[in-house]
Amino acid sequence: MSARLTAADPALLEALTFGADGLIPAIAQDATTGEVLMMAWMNRETLAMTLAEGRMVYWSRSRQEVWRKGDTSGDRQLVREAWVDCDADVLLFRVDQEGAGACHTGARSCFFRRLDAPA
Amino acid sequence: MSARLTAADPALLEALTFGADGLIPAIAQDATTGEVLMMAWMNRETLAMTLAEGRMVYWSRSRQEVWRKGDTSGDRQLVREAWVDCDADVLLFRVDQEGAGACHTGARSCFFRRLDAPA
Repeated sequence: MSARLTAADPALLEALTFGADGLIPAIAQDATTGEVLMMAWMNRETLAMTLAEGRMVYWSRSRQEVWRKGDTSGDRQLVREAWVDCDADVLLFRVDQEGAGACHTGARSCFFRRLDAPA
Repeated sequence: MSARLTAADPALLEALTFGADGLIPAIAQDATTGEVLMMAWMNRETLAMTLAEGRMVYWSRSRQEVWRKGDTSGDRQLVREAWVDCDADVLLFRVDQEGAGACHTGARSCFFRRLDAPA
């Protein structure tokens, strides 16, 4: 199901800007529906794991540990495409979401609460 | 074109978690196409401005100033929906992108560089 991804441009990988905490934001978007599923963080190590394993591996800030998404829940995120923004300080992954969804609440997307009132 | 947004839940607004730097990530997604346009940052002040003005107002980390998106370029982002993630520490805005696009390079999305090699 998962596969090693080839870096299109190793120089681009090298040029990524990680924050002072060594982390970069990683957005996961459903490759089929376009739904934004979640945003979490990666460090250089878990980004390399993500690209090597073809599935999303985050760095958990709360637990301060490698967070191989889906190892506990079964809801893995298989990477279809990886993109970098203009400043090279945000990552966007288009993924196939396995299982019920991305969110630990059971919701498909972590963005299930609306801040503004629907018109 | 823009309009004041009503908070669906003022308690949710209060419950948002801003980082140690006072900032929260804000993802802008095209409300029509689902394309992820950019991710930048807001503080509590620019989030309030965003909701009050119905257009995206970021905090520029590089310039350390209020960044009312589109004031210079004309490429404003009008807010259609605002969402909060499960941990209340990331915001997702579904927007109508005016002008050429979101990116200062002229690209429609800031995510125009692919990190992995297309299969």
